[in-house]
Amino acid sequence: METTARTDSPADPAAALECQSAHGYIKDKNSYLGRLKDVEGQARGIHKLVEDETYCIDILGQISAVTKALERVALGLLDDHLKHCVIQAAHLGGEAADSKIKQATDAVARFIRS
Amino acid sequence: METTARTDSPADPAAALECQSAHGYIKDKNSYLGRLKDVEGQARGIHKLVEDETYCIDILGQISAVTKALERVALGLLDDHLKHCVIQAAHLGGEAADSKIKQATDAVARFIRS
Amino acid sequence: METTARTDSPADPAAALECQSAHGYIKDKNSYLGRLKDVEGQARGIHKLVEDETYCIDILGQISAVTKALERVALGLLDDHLKHCVIQAAHLGGEAADSKIKQATDAVARFIRS
Amino acid sequence: METTARTDSPADPAAALECQSAHGYIKDKNSYLGRLKDVEGQARGIHKLVEDETYCIDILGQISAVTKALERVALGLLDDHLKHCVIQAAHLGGEAADSKIKQATDAVARFIRS
Repeated sequence: METTARTDSPADPAAALECQSAHGYIKDKNSYLGRLKDVEGQARGIHKLVEDETYCIDILGQISAVTKALERVALGLLDDHLKHCVIQAAHLGGEAADSKIKQATDAVARFIRS
Repeated sequence: METTARTDSPADPAAALECQSAHGYIKDKNSYLGRLKDVEGQARGIHKLVEDETYCIDILGQISAVTKALERVALGLLDDHLKHCVIQAAHLGGEAADSKIKQATDAVARFIRS
Repeated sequence: METTARTDSPADPAAALECQSAHGYIKDKNSYLGRLKDVEGQARGIHKLVEDETYCIDILGQISAVTKALERVALGLLDDHLKHCVIQAAHLGGEAADSKIKQATDAVARFIRS
Repeated sequence: METTARTDSPADPAAALECQSAHGYIKDKNSYLGRLKDVEGQARGIHKLVEDETYCIDILGQISAVTKALERVALGLLDDHLKHCVIQAAHLGGEAADSKIKQATDAVARFIRS
């Protein structure tokens, strides 16, 4: 049972919980990479705003924008995860599916303030 | 193809997107009902705090508590949805699965500020 | 030094941190009471949705709506708090102002997932 | 009426809404700059995770961590803003104070899903 993502750790029990084939987001990999490059640029921009002693409210606006961009990336990854890894796991059934779903809802919980 | 939740609308195309059997949360129905009764009581309590002209910061604390309680209910329902409706739909395959997953990620998106 | 909200505890040190006059939200008290009545009704509606075994995704939509309504009430109260209690405290100066601002940012922190 | 942040636009009406002296966060400028450097590094790390086709759930965990770090920076800036700019504006009184408070609650609203 080979996993795509962590071939360096074949004995890792967590690896059994990963996707059986390429991760769902791989088909959009370039789009995700581009969006994350933008996020890096935005983070650098916020650093510069503080360096230049910009008005605090303007900085808050930029921080809000970059966290929203990150949240949209996260929602995209979640959607891809459900469409690929969870659906695959559903066909394996039993604990494999339950583990993947627990991972997904735990991941969502970390994004929702609760 | 019968659905549990909206038997009044057999021709409703949306009904085809629902669970094929009892919804996942039904097994915990009483627990959810109890938690929602608590939420109602908390909402009534906040109303009384405003009526009594309580200190604003104390009211904010209560509002935060009740929104957290609601978010925990939502996360529980999401988990049950994925474990039951999405897994069932995975076995039907194709568009049925995709529709259910899109519904789930759309629902999550509404809880994440983005 | 009399406070409006907790006249029953004149020796309560926390009372000194409260507003010196009527709380900021009092002028909109009826509007807040109306909105909180609506929230109670929405909470009752969600209870009924679970009772009727409605489709989980529809329930999630309703929970999202009620938490948004509560968050809007909270933002209104925060705005009123800053405009009245914090401004008053600013004129008193020193620790009174710092305490009130710390309370406000702590309250905000509880609404932001962090 | 000189502002620290945008001396290049003395006639800018928005400048009148800025802080009258150094922004509140300036005293912690180095700490903020360090935290924002960390955020940049985290963003670069997430980019690398996608490049290496890491398991989606692990990426979601990293995105959650970096958005939390950004939110904590935002809360710190908000606190400094209230303690300095808003308190100063309170002493100027009238519209100056109201404008600054409206800016603060608008900024908070963008961080709360509502």
